[in-house]
Amino acid sequence: MIDDRHDINIPEILAEVAAAFARYEDALVNNRVEVLDELFWNSPHTLRYGAGENLYGYDEIQAFRAGRPSQGLARDVLRTVITTYGRDFATANIEFQRVGSSRPGRQSQTWVRTAQGWRVVAAHVSLMG
Amino acid sequence: MIDDRHDINIPEILAEVAAAFARYEDALVNNRVEVLDELFWNSPHTLRYGAGENLYGYDEIQAFRAGRPSQGLARDVLRTVITTYGRDFATANIEFQRVGSSRPGRQSQTWVRTAQGWRVVAAHVSLMG
Repeated sequence: MIDDRHDINIPEILAEVAAAFARYEDALVNNRVEVLDELFWNSPHTLRYGAGENLYGYDEIQAFRAGRPSQGLARDVLRTVITTYGRDFATANIEFQRVGSSRPGRQSQTWVRTAQGWRVVAAHVSLMG
Repeated sequence: MIDDRHDINIPEILAEVAAAFARYEDALVNNRVEVLDELFWNSPHTLRYGAGENLYGYDEIQAFRAGRPSQGLARDVLRTVITTYGRDFATANIEFQRVGSSRPGRQSQTWVRTAQGWRVVAAHVSLMG
């Protein structure tokens, strides 16, 4: 059970997740696919709803990344909310704007601490409007 | 730390979250706002990216629900993936189709066990295309 008073945003946990999240964002805009692959949980349970596709399981996500053009990934992050719950679980949510697009973007990730480190277990990216 | 072999989808935990999720879905399509309010974590950290709005904190989410027309909420759920991590954390993801719309919908929720029971701590709803 998560205790609202003691378990939310423990500073050292929040720092860990913020660092993992920053690493992900850097890898995304620079299309460093090996880092993106590393930071997603290698599991058939992993899921990613993208702006234009629904991907189930690590293999589908990895195949999508490998086949995606490396252009047009630049974006400005407008607002970031990272929240940690206890020591092993976190959410990271951002509003973003893709360079050259007028549609507001949102990205939601759920992070879990695994034996290999913090990993994204579920993600949802969408463009409004 | 979450152990891939032992902590994922523990049957009784999965059953708990599936029941909470079913309660949420029923409340949503029937616009039972008091149940929706109950099932969202009452915290300034709670966040909901909706199909057309970004809401930060329980109060903004509650105000949105209270002001939303109760018509047009019917939808068919096409695919559901609920995954639990240990005993206190879960994700619930669905693809859905709103009645009268051709745009594919996706809904992602992160659930946490609190002192009050299972609660949605972050959600993202979007329509593709």
